[in-house]
Amino acid sequence: MAMSIENKQVLLKGYVDTIPKESDMELNTTHLNYLPNPNKHILLLKNLYLSCDPYMRGRMRDFHDSYLPPFLPAQPLEGFGVSQVVKSDHPDFKAGDYVSGMTGWEQYTLTSSPQQAQQLRKIDDDHQNQIPLSYHLGLLGMPGFTAYVGLFEVCCPKKGEFVFVSAASGAVGQLVGQLAKLHGCYVVGSVGSSHKVDLLKNKLGFDDAFNYKDEPNLVAALKRYFPEGIDIYFDNVGKEMLDAALGNMRVFGRVAACGMVSLNSLSDPQTMHNLFNVIPKRIKIQGFLQSDYLDSFPRFFEHVSTYYKQGKIVYIEDMSEGLESAPSALVGLFSGKNIGKQVVRVIHP
Amino acid sequence: MAMSIENKQVLLKGYVDTIPKESDMELNTTHLNYLPNPNKHILLLKNLYLSCDPYMRGRMRDFHDSYLPPFLPAQPLEGFGVSQVVKSDHPDFKAGDYVSGMTGWEQYTLTSSPQQAQQLRKIDDDHQNQIPLSYHLGLLGMPGFTAYVGLFEVCCPKKGEFVFVSAASGAVGQLVGQLAKLHGCYVVGSVGSSHKVDLLKNKLGFDDAFNYKDEPNLVAALKRYFPEGIDIYFDNVGKEMLDAALGNMRVFGRVAACGMVSLNSLSDPQTMHNLFNVIPKRIKIQGFLQSDYLDSFPRFFEHVSTYYKQGKIVYIEDMSEGLESAPSALVGLFSGKNIGKQVVRVIHP
Repeated sequence: MAMSIENKQVLLKGYVDTIPKESDMELNTTHLNYLPNPNKHILLLKNLYLSCDPYMRGRMRDFHDSYLPPFLPAQPLEGFGVSQVVKSDHPDFKAGDYVSGMTGWEQYTLTSSPQQAQQLRKIDDDHQNQIPLSYHLGLLGMPGFTAYVGLFEVCCPKKGEFVFVSAASGAVGQLVGQLAKLHGCYVVGSVGSSHKVDLLKNKLGFDDAFNYKDEPNLVAALKRYFPEGIDIYFDNVGKEMLDAALGNMRVFGRVAACGMVSLNSLSDPQTMHNLFNVIPKRIKIQGFLQSDYLDSFPRFFEHVSTYYKQGKIVYIEDMSEGLESAPSALVGLFSGKNIGKQVVRVIHP
Repeated sequence: MAMSIENKQVLLKGYVDTIPKESDMELNTTHLNYLPNPNKHILLLKNLYLSCDPYMRGRMRDFHDSYLPPFLPAQPLEGFGVSQVVKSDHPDFKAGDYVSGMTGWEQYTLTSSPQQAQQLRKIDDDHQNQIPLSYHLGLLGMPGFTAYVGLFEVCCPKKGEFVFVSAASGAVGQLVGQLAKLHGCYVVGSVGSSHKVDLLKNKLGFDDAFNYKDEPNLVAALKRYFPEGIDIYFDNVGKEMLDAALGNMRVFGRVAACGMVSLNSLSDPQTMHNLFNVIPKRIKIQGFLQSDYLDSFPRFFEHVSTYYKQGKIVYIEDMSEGLESAPSALVGLFSGKNIGKQVVRVIHP
């Protein structure tokens, strides 16, 4: 039976070269027409939660040589979401199923191909009962998996090693720190406010934490927090903090290059005073993307969901209410406005 | 029987912060007294060849937190050398033996401990007959081993991969390129003169080569030489060339950080425009020191000496005559004056 639904969307107005602003996006209302067709394996999804992630800035640029294609101007943004199946022509899904995966920044999304539907992950009943649905965008989603592979597959931590995490209360950083602690490491995080320092020390169980905005000399700050040096630096920010960490690494140190959110644009130069250290200290700087490690996803999911159910891990979310709030929520990532994983609740499930 | 020998030396006058000048060293003549003592396992060495290597600059600085201690002011420099045993109290060595290893920048050196003697490598008769003695400082010495481990252990080349080498006619670079070619890679080198370009293309068998001084835009130059991008960058220079290579790396590219000879001093900032590429391209930058891989030395020695005897590898040396020429030879490394591996012949064997 054909359906026509009113559908609010967040559109990209045009390509963006520097830090995105709210005015680079606009709200739009359209109608979505759904026509059942069992041969096409299409799903009609109601989007419940949308994920705001720093990598999305890359898709707002007019740059086609990256690992993800840019968004299309005048079209809804895309990102990870948790959705409920409203209509299904696909044999693997039925109405009512909860799924996580790529979806549009809109109230309803029609999958465009059987492949797109196939890439959605069904959220099983057990997890629905014990784990908040939105956590499939953070703790158990791409950011959590990024933390897991960056720490374990890229940095191979050993018990007792010294681990430094920047943007440490963010979607990725908060899990890096907790996993490293559970692994027996000493963990310090940097954040951008005293409230976040407090969260790291008193809620997330970091050994120590500091507000980088209070530190005129980051090299000296890290020397204070790591008098014996850093074995592993999980870098979410780049620039001055990366340089300062390189000035404090121990021999055979490892840097997981996960994000460079402090860059205003890709052409923003990074002035490095301590890069030479990679040679005498035999440091490895390894860029990585979680998508190269998808074979490890089931192991990650089991590992982290078990910890969560056992109460050994907590996860902080910053929940923004309503699709209208999505542009502001996304933009806020680049000034550190969010506290914890930034999610937009499109509608209460 | 006691001996007293006149001994010319090259002394470090005082610590140096930037690029060393000839006037940072001075010649001195002293007397060396040798007293046989079988309990002390001392060797009296006549130094035949001394090696000039860029890492030695690090030992001219007053910096004690590196992997090697600084030289002592008013004492002879130290470095790799090929020497002949004149007197031996050590059961493993006899007068007339040729050895390579750490020695002083002087005509004669007394080993200071049984350990120092133990670290010398005897050059066997087979190699004496087929391989020039001085090659034990380059092709079959530390620089050659650096090329070998940097290429094979750090970068793990695959047949058909695109390899870029900077300072490519130098002690390390010339072997990196030849080994990569023998491994089935496509190899381009950068050097600082048209004569060196000619050597790379016509004597060392590189696929292509360019003079970086002729290139106003290194990113564009590398795009021309590597239209499909670079899989492996063997970095001997740092700074602009490292940055340009990072702007041209392929996905899963590897950078072996071997030296940063373009730095004027350790505090010389490197402005990087392309460092962010490590993330989308999943690039690894790995600093390394050959001394961490000494277990592989016998394999390297066998591998490379066999290639050499088969005529599959050539090696270019820049031979400087006489101990008096050593300061100028060392200083010349930092302006690229040398062509090939810089060696000082103290005396004809």
